[in-house]
Amino acid sequence: MLQASIITIGDELLIGQVVDTNSAAISRVLGGIGVKVRSMISIADDQNSILESLKRESGLSDIVITTGGLGPTKDDITKKALAEFAGSDGWYYHEGQLAEIHRILGSRGLDVLQINTDQALVPKGCEVIVNHLGTAPVMVFRGKSSLYSLPGVPFEAVAALPDIAADIREHYSLSSIYHRNLMVYGIAESKLSNLIAPWEDNLPEDIHLAYLPSPLTGIRLRISVYGEDETSAEKRVSGLLPALYALLGDYLYSEADDTLEGKTGRILKANSLTLAAAESCTGGEIAHLITTVPGSSAYFLGSVTSYAVSVKEKVLGVPHETIAEYGVVSSEVAAAMAEGARRVLGADYAVATTGLAGPGGDESNKEGTVWIAVASERGTVTEKRVYSADRKRNIERFAASALDLLRRSLQKDGFSE
Amino acid sequence: MLQASIITIGDELLIGQVVDTNSAAISRVLGGIGVKVRSMISIADDQNSILESLKRESGLSDIVITTGGLGPTKDDITKKALAEFAGSDGWYYHEGQLAEIHRILGSRGLDVLQINTDQALVPKGCEVIVNHLGTAPVMVFRGKSSLYSLPGVPFEAVAALPDIAADIREHYSLSSIYHRNLMVYGIAESKLSNLIAPWEDNLPEDIHLAYLPSPLTGIRLRISVYGEDETSAEKRVSGLLPALYALLGDYLYSEADDTLEGKTGRILKANSLTLAAAESCTGGEIAHLITTVPGSSAYFLGSVTSYAVSVKEKVLGVPHETIAEYGVVSSEVAAAMAEGARRVLGADYAVATTGLAGPGGDESNKEGTVWIAVASERGTVTEKRVYSADRKRNIERFAASALDLLRRSLQKDGFSE
Repeated sequence: MLQASIITIGDELLIGQVVDTNSAAISRVLGGIGVKVRSMISIADDQNSILESLKRESGLSDIVITTGGLGPTKDDITKKALAEFAGSDGWYYHEGQLAEIHRILGSRGLDVLQINTDQALVPKGCEVIVNHLGTAPVMVFRGKSSLYSLPGVPFEAVAALPDIAADIREHYSLSSIYHRNLMVYGIAESKLSNLIAPWEDNLPEDIHLAYLPSPLTGIRLRISVYGEDETSAEKRVSGLLPALYALLGDYLYSEADDTLEGKTGRILKANSLTLAAAESCTGGEIAHLITTVPGSSAYFLGSVTSYAVSVKEKVLGVPHETIAEYGVVSSEVAAAMAEGARRVLGADYAVATTGLAGPGGDESNKEGTVWIAVASERGTVTEKRVYSADRKRNIERFAASALDLLRRSLQKDGFSE
Repeated sequence: MLQASIITIGDELLIGQVVDTNSAAISRVLGGIGVKVRSMISIADDQNSILESLKRESGLSDIVITTGGLGPTKDDITKKALAEFAGSDGWYYHEGQLAEIHRILGSRGLDVLQINTDQALVPKGCEVIVNHLGTAPVMVFRGKSSLYSLPGVPFEAVAALPDIAADIREHYSLSSIYHRNLMVYGIAESKLSNLIAPWEDNLPEDIHLAYLPSPLTGIRLRISVYGEDETSAEKRVSGLLPALYALLGDYLYSEADDTLEGKTGRILKANSLTLAAAESCTGGEIAHLITTVPGSSAYFLGSVTSYAVSVKEKVLGVPHETIAEYGVVSSEVAAAMAEGARRVLGADYAVATTGLAGPGGDESNKEGTVWIAVASERGTVTEKRVYSADRKRNIERFAASALDLLRRSLQKDGFSE
């Protein structure tokens, strides 16, 4: 199987000021064409480190992909290191990239400076894939292994990946890899492992199962088969699934790589239903998740983030007495918020959260407590959850659990994609 | 200077289904105590890869930190690899971790299964730092280099870092590293580089400047001095700053590692002002950013995500005629949304966005266009921005530019922290 190494370059990575999202994005694309990533390495903007890593990884892998260090400023030195590694004997301006630099900066009303122009200067012998989203071109060096240098800006790197994948397909004959993803929500990893042990223990040796938990999407069960052609691998895996589905029951929410906002969005859209949200402790996270889905305007009307009690009362119409009697973090207030959002925004379904993301709890509820609610013409359901993570993580779990309650409510009400 | 390597372990990293945030979190903590991270490596859940990386990195670095592969399920094999690497001759149950496992699962109402109990089983010879947030303990192996094994779940790994830092301080004498961060918003990287070139070109050789752009926080300028004691490095850097500040002017929004939501939050809080938001295209991102700040309930009343036109009219009171005459993406609608949010939620300041995050524009506005507005008793200001990134990135840029307009408005109105 074709092997690849990913090298991300930048002091900002090594001191932890930026999280590397490029490696994961590159791996997903490589995996899709049957290239196995053997390692991902992050190193500093340092000539020796770059050369050393290029030498080692190009000795071990068929394909080496680097990102970063191509900016116009003085601290970016990847291009010089690449030229030295490839033994280039000079530089040239790439006309296609130069034109893009003028177009991009022009459309933003910016002057084209010398340091911008120099972004189109590349080592002789390298091929260029024009970057249409930024000024740094993608460079391809063909030697014993293939070396691709991508810009470090994540959306520019991601935009280049289809071209990289096409280039790899053109130059190598690829063996296959088959992944099947199932999405599960509402069960802890260890409990899930026990639940499906009877199935997992009987898996053939060459079929690999991984548990990939995430606070926003639940647990992704990934079933992998390497080196078998896709049709035959798919057939074998499909034959094993009914027994797994029987064990998973309602915890299974999707038979593909998916998200709760994607799943609920498709159900809403397919049934011409509209959705509203009322958020307290999640502070906009639910609306944010829903609206990351392109086309969500077809079903999502909007939301009210009622952080202050006054907004719960004035905008959502939660009765003052309900808050006084039961407290802000209560089943009754969650229900009144969902019903208020549904009424005020005029939606078929509304989802609401009220809780304590932390740090700190109050006299009645400990940190990590949330009440979630879903209201529709069929009535209102509420559920309580208690999580024990930090603020950011709790907010994510609160939002995801509310979306999952919405998913289960929609399915219970007979709606499907 | 003490060197460290970080090894993150997990198939999910190599196939790109999970982004590694642990390495950045660990690096930040190590940097803070003067340990330099020389490389970050991600490898698969594979005994040979783990052993090979442990051997190589422990030969190159004084400290090796691993995360991941400690879960209760069958695909997690780090612990076995660590035992082999350290030459342990057996296993023992760590009583402290065992008690935590019972406490944690009990508080969630879960049964303690054998696979949970086995999480407390560790190789003989290793020391344990109890994990209070999860079931997998932190293990410390002392050899030629120090080896720390952390759980892969990000918030559990992060929670262990203060103890790891304390342990490193206890076992090594550390040289120093000094970083100073300045936050800049509203200027492109290349333009900034030109603006401050007269200053940057005269920096002493041992003072290093890096540009770290992010769509949410603008450009972080990081000034670093290695190997000089903190007091003296700070004094030298401070002496250089006034000349830089003169060049940066209003683009500079903070003299520390900061965010726009943090900066505006502190100004609002210090002046007992309240804030509301009305979001269209940003779909909750602004409220989400504001409420990631602990204590934001002191000034943030809430927001209305008015994705549908009906919500803009009914909830925010944007006149139907304004939308009909100027279109949804217009200065007039942005202003009416901000004024509506301020009135309906009863806030001192309100911020609003209306735009097209993409994919796709409409007849009047191209994809990436946003109108932002800030309303207060002093009146309403609006500004237009055009970005050219993908949907997710555009949403982030829209939200950040709105928060920056709020920041500049507050400062213009005479408010400071």
